[in-house]
Amino acid sequence: MRRPIVGVMGPGTGATSADCELAFALGSAIARQGWVLLTGGLACGVMDAASRGARAAGGLTVGILPTSSTDEASNAVDIAIATGLGSGRNQINALSSDVLVACGEGLGTLSEVALALKAGKPVVLLGCGADWECLFHKLATDGLVSSAATPRDACSLVAELLQAHRFA
Amino acid sequence: MRRPIVGVMGPGTGATSADCELAFALGSAIARQGWVLLTGGLACGVMDAASRGARAAGGLTVGILPTSSTDEASNAVDIAIATGLGSGRNQINALSSDVLVACGEGLGTLSEVALALKAGKPVVLLGCGADWECLFHKLATDGLVSSAATPRDACSLVAELLQAHRFA
Amino acid sequence: MRRPIVGVMGPGTGATSADCELAFALGSAIARQGWVLLTGGLACGVMDAASRGARAAGGLTVGILPTSSTDEASNAVDIAIATGLGSGRNQINALSSDVLVACGEGLGTLSEVALALKAGKPVVLLGCGADWECLFHKLATDGLVSSAATPRDACSLVAELLQAHRFA
Amino acid sequence: MRRPIVGVMGPGTGATSADCELAFALGSAIARQGWVLLTGGLACGVMDAASRGARAAGGLTVGILPTSSTDEASNAVDIAIATGLGSGRNQINALSSDVLVACGEGLGTLSEVALALKAGKPVVLLGCGADWECLFHKLATDGLVSSAATPRDACSLVAELLQAHRFA
Repeated sequence: MRRPIVGVMGPGTGATSADCELAFALGSAIARQGWVLLTGGLACGVMDAASRGARAAGGLTVGILPTSSTDEASNAVDIAIATGLGSGRNQINALSSDVLVACGEGLGTLSEVALALKAGKPVVLLGCGADWECLFHKLATDGLVSSAATPRDACSLVAELLQAHRFA
Repeated sequence: MRRPIVGVMGPGTGATSADCELAFALGSAIARQGWVLLTGGLACGVMDAASRGARAAGGLTVGILPTSSTDEASNAVDIAIATGLGSGRNQINALSSDVLVACGEGLGTLSEVALALKAGKPVVLLGCGADWECLFHKLATDGLVSSAATPRDACSLVAELLQAHRFA
Repeated sequence: MRRPIVGVMGPGTGATSADCELAFALGSAIARQGWVLLTGGLACGVMDAASRGARAAGGLTVGILPTSSTDEASNAVDIAIATGLGSGRNQINALSSDVLVACGEGLGTLSEVALALKAGKPVVLLGCGADWECLFHKLATDGLVSSAATPRDACSLVAELLQAHRFA
Repeated sequence: MRRPIVGVMGPGTGATSADCELAFALGSAIARQGWVLLTGGLACGVMDAASRGARAAGGLTVGILPTSSTDEASNAVDIAIATGLGSGRNQINALSSDVLVACGEGLGTLSEVALALKAGKPVVLLGCGADWECLFHKLATDGLVSSAATPRDACSLVAELLQAHRFA
């Protein structure tokens, strides 16, 4: 059986240092669970921080790049997939993650959460404002959206969701 | 010079009858301005209603389908583009519209608004709640998001935005 | 009923002047039949020449661009679809054409013919060498590949194929 | 530094048993070199055989699926990327492989070789006829296409190409 893939989505160049700290801790926690980390792959913001966190904890990291080459990939990405699709790759991030965690707020992240929920994937919101929670609870099917206060909480929710949605 | 392309995005099977009435009127207004209408192309909801409105007013309608065939296209679509990308085609909707109007609320629409703003495209919100307005005003660059109360207002805004962003 | 869409695929910057002359005549002939012309949309080679031919004959032209903006579109394209997919848009060219005509030889064209045949679309080879004919006759289902010596012949074949495959 | 990714492309349901034997041996050889194997990910033909070969040799396998779920992935794929792009994912196979090996003949494989060469990626033809060799030598830049008689030869060529194109 394949190892679960957990997506961590968040701002790139627009990420705050708080977003990046959360992402690093989250990436580490995901790796310690033995899950594969999937991000948007670029060498900036949440993608980079989560990948570095997972790498530091000995995990395996996949990056789904918007670019057509791997030149801009984070050094902490093990498997760099060059899609050449620009933000069109956000749909692949959504479809390829067993569970998706949004870490911080941005337009790309918003599109990824929306696409994941539309595809029936469970999403955990970490470090997102109350407006995101309200909006997505209103738009999504019951049980697909949940919120976490810390990376540790997020990981507990992911574990439950993996059990419920994939390994039931 | 090419005719402007105005995208109308909104829920498919989840659309309310109010969404569809707005979309029909909006499609008609777009066609009367001589603009090309672009939608997600399916035979349901806002996509279908906007296309029927534009068709009724003698306009030209383009549908960017998620499917790999044109079997599920609205009858009111003149140019049916079969992408086979699923919701990955939402990015093409965003990139190919000179201005995008969101008409009603849904997860696909949310992703399209987010992707359009990320690509620097102006977006008009019609029939969207105050939470969408707040969220997008917070996330987007100044001047890219505006709100309209009626299809007529939306068309006036689109005219201004086309002038400012494309035909300046 | 929608007007048929006929795709004309061929080299861009690598096109010969013979390729472009064939493409211009083919675009004109397609427009005179009342069919919509679909190309890869760029302002060079076969895409540009076919679009100019169709435009000169009063036709409607669609360009499926690899780029994320329409800046590089041929002036003779009426409906410019900015996909941002790079050569990933070749699959959309294949799926959106009711019949596809290959006009000249190149790697992109080769991929488009292969993808069209894989999707069950009929293809007419015009100005392609005997090696292309042999290769595709060997790989494709009976009846999907045919060859034409002139743009006029190509149009006659397209008319037959449209009748057989779409409007039977 | 990331481990090299070697793509193995070949027919799915249309593969011959000879294609699959070559693919299994090739996948094993790739894994023994410490390279990551990338295929189209489905549970049939060359994709499946190469992945099983790599798995048997202790390698890491990535599958870039055309589907929007991982239900149809080969059991021997470790990292299953669900693109939902249909054959549009062939471009991702081409862009994400440092070197691509074509193993057997089919329309999808043909498109992948063409897209890889167009993107400037080196391709090794294994188990392809003389017509493929002639065609691609004619269309591609010098040095990008080479041919191998056995999986072992293919691996030697891949090693040289990786050195020349990526790790020079």
